[in-house]
Amino acid sequence: MMSAYDPNNIFAKILRGEIPSHKIYEDARTLAFLDIMPRSPGHTLVVPKVEATNLLDIALDDLTYLMSVVRKLAPEIVATLGAEGFMLQQFNGAGAGQTVFHLHMHIVPRWASLPLKPHAGQMEDPQVLAETAEKLRAALAAKGMGNG
Amino acid sequence: MMSAYDPNNIFAKILRGEIPSHKIYEDARTLAFLDIMPRSPGHTLVVPKVEATNLLDIALDDLTYLMSVVRKLAPEIVATLGAEGFMLQQFNGAGAGQTVFHLHMHIVPRWASLPLKPHAGQMEDPQVLAETAEKLRAALAAKGMGNG
Repeated sequence: MMSAYDPNNIFAKILRGEIPSHKIYEDARTLAFLDIMPRSPGHTLVVPKVEATNLLDIALDDLTYLMSVVRKLAPEIVATLGAEGFMLQQFNGAGAGQTVFHLHMHIVPRWASLPLKPHAGQMEDPQVLAETAEKLRAALAAKGMGNG
Repeated sequence: MMSAYDPNNIFAKILRGEIPSHKIYEDARTLAFLDIMPRSPGHTLVVPKVEATNLLDIALDDLTYLMSVVRKLAPEIVATLGAEGFMLQQFNGAGAGQTVFHLHMHIVPRWASLPLKPHAGQMEDPQVLAETAEKLRAALAAKGMGNG
């Protein structure tokens, strides 16, 4: 389940700014952006800036910080999109469905009436992602939550 | 999404010992037991002993401790059952699929060849749960991880 960290994984490239993302939040230790294959509208990934492949190889202090950001962002995403709650999800190991080997917490907004799409299923229209990200960035900025 | 903590929820009753569970681990601040409607063999719930309905209303220090226990147990569950990885899952709000309003982290062992069963789907045979719990308790005990 454990493997060495690959600095060329796609989230490492996003963190280095080598490829774009639909960013909604950034601070000194974390970045949050939309999943391009969302299970529901507003499906967000929160990643630490430290190198960690999964839940087991990140320092507990870095994990705590990551969880504090999840707790800060999730209720704002839920409120902004009018969701009814959210699911936290996180995958460890290829056999568990992990596809990018940089630790990421999934915040999946939920509506009881809206069935979840499959994990890592279908690519969303980039225009829909851009509009959702813009809406979330604006809502977070209005609450003083930066996008540094 | 947020509601007052109900001290008569089923996990509060398990924590008070009023109803039984297939316990695999316990310490001063957390309890871990098998989900009776597992999404995969060994599907375990880790709960804090403090009153918290979901991810948002637990003190960060208690959440950090909970996550430290998840990190301790998950690799042992994976190794003991010969799984290929695990999924972390956690639900916030009835509209998100939360059915018991005491915060619980799901550790779901995964095998690539074994599709997940639905969340809160079908009750497992109690004998299967008892045998799995016994196997996990023994493996954890052999590693000095208590069941106080």
